[in-house]
Amino acid sequence: MAETIFSEMSRLAAENDAINLGQGFPDTPGPREVVDAAVAAMHKGWNQYPPAVGIPSLRTAIADHQRRWYGLDVAADGGVVVCSGASEALSSAMTALLAPGDEVIALEPYYDLYGATAALLGATLVPVRIHAPDYALDAAALRAAVTPRTTMIVLNTPHNPTGAVLSRAELQSIADVAIEHDLVVLSDEVYEHLVFDAGVHVPIATLPGMFERTITVGSGGKTFSVTGWKIGWATGPADLVAKVLGVKQWFSFAAGTPLQHGIATGLELPDDRLAHLGDDLARKRDLLTDGLRELGLEVFHSKATYFVTADVAPLGVTDSLEFCRSLPERVGVAAVPNQVFHASPEGVETQVRFACCKRDEILADALLRLRKL
Amino acid sequence: MAETIFSEMSRLAAENDAINLGQGFPDTPGPREVVDAAVAAMHKGWNQYPPAVGIPSLRTAIADHQRRWYGLDVAADGGVVVCSGASEALSSAMTALLAPGDEVIALEPYYDLYGATAALLGATLVPVRIHAPDYALDAAALRAAVTPRTTMIVLNTPHNPTGAVLSRAELQSIADVAIEHDLVVLSDEVYEHLVFDAGVHVPIATLPGMFERTITVGSGGKTFSVTGWKIGWATGPADLVAKVLGVKQWFSFAAGTPLQHGIATGLELPDDRLAHLGDDLARKRDLLTDGLRELGLEVFHSKATYFVTADVAPLGVTDSLEFCRSLPERVGVAAVPNQVFHASPEGVETQVRFACCKRDEILADALLRLRKL
Ligand SMILES: CSCCC(=O)C(=O)O
Ligand SMILES: CSCCC(=O)C(=O)O
Repeated sequence: MAETIFSEMSRLAAENDAINLGQGFPDTPGPREVVDAAVAAMHKGWNQYPPAVGIPSLRTAIADHQRRWYGLDVAADGGVVVCSGASEALSSAMTALLAPGDEVIALEPYYDLYGATAALLGATLVPVRIHAPDYALDAAALRAAVTPRTTMIVLNTPHNPTGAVLSRAELQSIADVAIEHDLVVLSDEVYEHLVFDAGVHVPIATLPGMFERTITVGSGGKTFSVTGWKIGWATGPADLVAKVLGVKQWFSFAAGTPLQHGIATGLELPDDRLAHLGDDLARKRDLLTDGLRELGLEVFHSKATYFVTADVAPLGVTDSLEFCRSLPERVGVAAVPNQVFHASPEGVETQVRFACCKRDEILADALLRLRKL
Repeated sequence: MAETIFSEMSRLAAENDAINLGQGFPDTPGPREVVDAAVAAMHKGWNQYPPAVGIPSLRTAIADHQRRWYGLDVAADGGVVVCSGASEALSSAMTALLAPGDEVIALEPYYDLYGATAALLGATLVPVRIHAPDYALDAAALRAAVTPRTTMIVLNTPHNPTGAVLSRAELQSIADVAIEHDLVVLSDEVYEHLVFDAGVHVPIATLPGMFERTITVGSGGKTFSVTGWKIGWATGPADLVAKVLGVKQWFSFAAGTPLQHGIATGLELPDDRLAHLGDDLARKRDLLTDGLRELGLEVFHSKATYFVTADVAPLGVTDSLEFCRSLPERVGVAAVPNQVFHASPEGVETQVRFACCKRDEILADALLRLRKL
């Protein structure tokens, strides 16, 4: 298995002392209460094994959060499993639910882990492309992708790398297919709180008939700006969650105890604090979008996440992978080529994803550097 | 996949407010510098993604530790991968190196993860039993267990649950078999620093011809009494370590950044601090061993680890699994039946593992409670 694109680009960034707009992580701290709670937990000596399923207070906080925000009735006991990051929630869920030969439908572009994990399991990822500039779902294409071997749809909303947020109508058309063909939906919603401009995130589990067939994945790291803590979770009906736990207990067994305490505190913050976690990011999205447009690039409107996608063809680029591999050394900026999120680069050869979750002066500096091209 | 025995017994302990001598974790803090360093890292804002392979300072500390203690020439860059606990190092290594139909030899009793992960991968665990009271390796039995399908030996020294420490001669006979049949050795050495009575831990990777075929697994949690931090690692030759990383990057991607900083500080402590980490535990092993003997039980001498095994037949027990399931409610103590570390309980039906890594007064209280039986 090759190095992931995030590892490669962060390595090139470090080697070239470049501004890292590749891998998605913020460079400013999140809510101070979150770090304080983890520190307090360590000082209290809460450094020993948590239950494999997660500490009770975090599971309760996750269930309460799902209820307050989405009206979802998730059981803190049985309906939640805390994982070593959303990555482990996703890889455990796929390992628990996929058999060799199964087909998994995913919206394309898709996060690299989905394809790699499917391959590791002998399953096949079947991409259904959403297209720039608006990234609308083609419901007919989704329906046409289903075969007798299809067992799962992996969904990602808000969507990385495009910043798309699936509408209720789009989600309904996915739900219709899932119900008609009795498919499980694995819904990666790690950017649920990073939605801009009064946009609304709708968990597909809230649609009629969907809760019982959906595993929803969330991330403490993304929500509270502590991506290096690796605290994520899967929620859903008891039978599916038990299967995720059944695998995850043999992967890492459990996730870091004091960090779980920190994230529990974060999820218990007043709802208006959570509601504004994306505000500053929206402004940064604008800064980066405007700056890239001033460079003559087409930028696709991002409604959410840490990311903005631009078409770098006006710079004379024909292959974004090659471009991104040379960019750190050429001008001191790292970015990610969207083609790595595709089964085939056709049609997205010149798209590049830039992270906007950086301090204003860093974004300004990156834009200055890109101007040299 | 059923709940692990550790989850089950810790759950029963919690439900019954019992003293938990089941799952192995200490109830006193380790070196204060370790927690302080993790706290300092958090306050410095080191809360974002680490490299998937691990932060450079921890990889360097791991490599230096292997050199100082064992004379092993491990490359900090390429020869080390930090994982979400030793669990993930083991599960990633097995996933990377085993194919369906492969046979994996393991000393029996064996840690539950080895068998579960082999099963998950469609491989077969072939047990080679070591017997109480001395748990000596039967080299002929090991040799006889090899078939054309054997590809790996999973070794565990110091050995959980027995507290055995494999001698250089025993390791040499394992090495002979591994070299003759071109097998990979996955060596779980998480208790390397918890060896009692001037005993010596020998990594099998130090034997001639072994480094290039061995993945060695270590644990920051076990060494520094922070089992809930889930920072472990695999070390070895670049080709094998790359394969472990190739899988692990899709399991959890990376392990908790600030906790990695804490463990790096631990491994950089003066060698005489590390050399004495097991001293207090040896005394506790004596306390528990003597106390159990006073209850009329046969206790097998433990040379290392958190654990002591006793035969509870004198209490009229015929099935240790049943016994351990009822013990928390009956007398308020939890323990682990050794039979769960065996493919078949035959011959160990009445063996029970007790953790000795608890405060003296807790051990005394547990012994008082057991006296009621
Ligand atoms: C786990 S590293 C990748 C982080 C991320 O989600 C992204 O950059 O897309
Ligand atoms: C990962 S939970 C089990 C801890 C342990 O190593 C043991 O109790 O044997």
